[in-house]
Amino acid sequence: MPQVAIIGAGFAGLSAAAALRQAGHDDFIVLEARDRVGGRTRAGRIGDLTVDLGGMWMSPHDDRLGALAARHGVRTYPTFLDGRAVFRIGDRERLGRREDLAPLLGVAGGLAFLAARWKLQRLMAPLDTARPWAHPQAALLDATTVETWIARNVRHRLTRTAFRTACATLLCAQPSQVSLLFFIHYIKSGGGIDRLISADTGGAQNLAFHGGVHAIARAMADGLGDRLRLGTPVDRIDWHADGAVLHCGGDTLTARRVIVTVPPTLLHRIRFSPALPEPKEALHDRLAMGASIKFYILYDRPFWRDAGLNGTILRDGVPIAPVMDVTPPGQPHGLLVGFFDGEEAIRHADRPVAARRAAALDLLTRHFGDRARDPLGYIDHDWTSAEWSGGCYGAYAPPGIFARYGEWLRRPIGPLHWAGTETSPDHTGYIEGAIRSGERVAAEIMAPAHTE
Amino acid sequence: MPQVAIIGAGFAGLSAAAALRQAGHDDFIVLEARDRVGGRTRAGRIGDLTVDLGGMWMSPHDDRLGALAARHGVRTYPTFLDGRAVFRIGDRERLGRREDLAPLLGVAGGLAFLAARWKLQRLMAPLDTARPWAHPQAALLDATTVETWIARNVRHRLTRTAFRTACATLLCAQPSQVSLLFFIHYIKSGGGIDRLISADTGGAQNLAFHGGVHAIARAMADGLGDRLRLGTPVDRIDWHADGAVLHCGGDTLTARRVIVTVPPTLLHRIRFSPALPEPKEALHDRLAMGASIKFYILYDRPFWRDAGLNGTILRDGVPIAPVMDVTPPGQPHGLLVGFFDGEEAIRHADRPVAARRAAALDLLTRHFGDRARDPLGYIDHDWTSAEWSGGCYGAYAPPGIFARYGEWLRRPIGPLHWAGTETSPDHTGYIEGAIRSGERVAAEIMAPAHTE
Repeated sequence: MPQVAIIGAGFAGLSAAAALRQAGHDDFIVLEARDRVGGRTRAGRIGDLTVDLGGMWMSPHDDRLGALAARHGVRTYPTFLDGRAVFRIGDRERLGRREDLAPLLGVAGGLAFLAARWKLQRLMAPLDTARPWAHPQAALLDATTVETWIARNVRHRLTRTAFRTACATLLCAQPSQVSLLFFIHYIKSGGGIDRLISADTGGAQNLAFHGGVHAIARAMADGLGDRLRLGTPVDRIDWHADGAVLHCGGDTLTARRVIVTVPPTLLHRIRFSPALPEPKEALHDRLAMGASIKFYILYDRPFWRDAGLNGTILRDGVPIAPVMDVTPPGQPHGLLVGFFDGEEAIRHADRPVAARRAAALDLLTRHFGDRARDPLGYIDHDWTSAEWSGGCYGAYAPPGIFARYGEWLRRPIGPLHWAGTETSPDHTGYIEGAIRSGERVAAEIMAPAHTE
Repeated sequence: MPQVAIIGAGFAGLSAAAALRQAGHDDFIVLEARDRVGGRTRAGRIGDLTVDLGGMWMSPHDDRLGALAARHGVRTYPTFLDGRAVFRIGDRERLGRREDLAPLLGVAGGLAFLAARWKLQRLMAPLDTARPWAHPQAALLDATTVETWIARNVRHRLTRTAFRTACATLLCAQPSQVSLLFFIHYIKSGGGIDRLISADTGGAQNLAFHGGVHAIARAMADGLGDRLRLGTPVDRIDWHADGAVLHCGGDTLTARRVIVTVPPTLLHRIRFSPALPEPKEALHDRLAMGASIKFYILYDRPFWRDAGLNGTILRDGVPIAPVMDVTPPGQPHGLLVGFFDGEEAIRHADRPVAARRAAALDLLTRHFGDRARDPLGYIDHDWTSAEWSGGCYGAYAPPGIFARYGEWLRRPIGPLHWAGTETSPDHTGYIEGAIRSGERVAAEIMAPAHTE
């Protein structure tokens, strides 16, 4: 019987496995429901290029992802930023540097942005991302939606729209759906709002991977050999203080410790016996997943650059935002990535791919001209319908949940330990958070209390 | 092949079946996952009495439930109200008539209550319970939690506590968790807040049933014969425009129309192929169930009446609220019913029954004296852990969901039709709403467009 069963071969599960091996603990097994590894990262093909249909970016602050990329020889390249981005909010359209809000929002709007950001920072200051529920105003912040906060604290119409768009872009959920406590936790966990919305040096959208970040997940999996079992959803876990029996279809498997990395909203797919503590179930029943459809469009060349544009489109009033130029250097084509986020993803999920392609081409034609009408290819991936993800990028907390039950995200229960990006105090919602959660949970089960 | 498959034998499914039969459509089948009928009503025994461990009350406004009770010869009796109730909010304790708030809240608090109720009524006035998402301020109200509304609109500390307690008591959820749009829809659907919190004539807690309301469900089921299949959860539904194939364990069953009455938060237990429209899935993924544990305590006689008390306890600061005297007339014993609601239910669900019993007896001893220490019996039922309910009394909408996706609660999808108390414009969340939803859905599938 293996010492440790790891459920899920996304970056959390693979990182837990890697950490166990590095510590000399080879007696584990990784069970993955899908027929592939990578979780909310996955590879796709457009033209001759391999692209990330899920998580794709790294910031220079992502230490653990950077280390994995170096170890497995997967190289990065920067999101293309030379030139001007297209900004549009309300009826105001500007071309400019991506981080430069003044031309777009105007002086009054820009000042309103600075004031609101300062207020957010004041709210975040006493928040410990390891224990956000211990914030001195936790109950109050958790009783409030992000939308209520925006309506009361952001003084300028365009700036309110900018904040709403930022929330939808970051969490793939509408500000009316999200707890303010969860929102500030998420932002602080990622290093602040400037970093999270930036593709510039230091920003969360700064670096993409040649061949896709998914190549790292595959490389990590390659070393696992028959300790990795694909196509093996776990239906039931019978557990007691010293171990567990996992039921996978007709098979059963015993383990002393179990690391569960499934997306937190899909925990109900596993029947636990005895049932999990009610606060844990209440939490997972009430968390919701963001909704996202990600697309790529390939052109024969990045023609928008001829007009001094860098391919970025940041705007409201269309179903798509943002768009960025993620053309890999060293090849002739031009590659744009874009997203249907939040309610737009839900609205477009049932439409045929051709309709989503048309919506994307309409937008690009409007801003980049008629040449955008004729791409070499379009590909998209609807994460809202992904059976073993249930959405992307991550889970969010509606009001009234996180302050009460958030601690149950990663509190061990008997032999059960919990990982996944949502459990990470740092970089929660990002690949980096998933990796850190895997390394944390491996340390947790190797801690003295658990070595016998 | 039956014309109609009804999933669920709660009051919604049983009422749909009854309506089909009355219209001469005998070609249906009812599939129930549990080994019993009644859904969120169920019978229990304490001493010689049969009691309702789930839904139990009828108001005189519950026309359809009243008609069913008359048809099946199940008689009602009123909740006992002669004498004084115990009220306590904050550090203020009073004895008085149940609906009389002034002694408890004081003059200022009473005025604050009237002012807040008036504001709620103004919000409710333009709301059409058949289309709450069409409220002129739907988006705004749906972006707000009930807690935010209370904090801004209720001017007195004790009155705020009273409103919070009312929300938790009505919805079995905390005001920080609930959309204000959903809340006013729920209240208006039930005839207003006065009616919903009242046990007096016309109130929602006015009439209980000899032998339990569950006896009505059983009587309805008795007539179904082998058209009712218990212990038959539906795992999968393959559907197309003209019909569906239902998979139940190893069995399959075809039908032209399917009526789905499962609690809205458990819809994910059925795999639909093709998948349901994404807005429908988004709605059901994000709705949450209230949490409730209901208990009964039986005494040799209703001794609290000797002191002029009517057995009602309405208070904050304890895990239990409310308590009421539901002693059936014509027998010597005294019967109290009480609830752990919302977060208190979640907190107490993992505790042993003995601990919940002790908490209940502590409260009763405090208010009714030492005689309360020695009951003939205690029984409770934890609905939060009920596999095929997932909570009680009903589902609630967190913010940002109901205005966007609420219409999908009952919008037919191909051969799939939706019932259950949450789909009812009137008396939603109550047995009456479940019955009306069943009758509505039966009419829906018998409408000319669907007769061939």
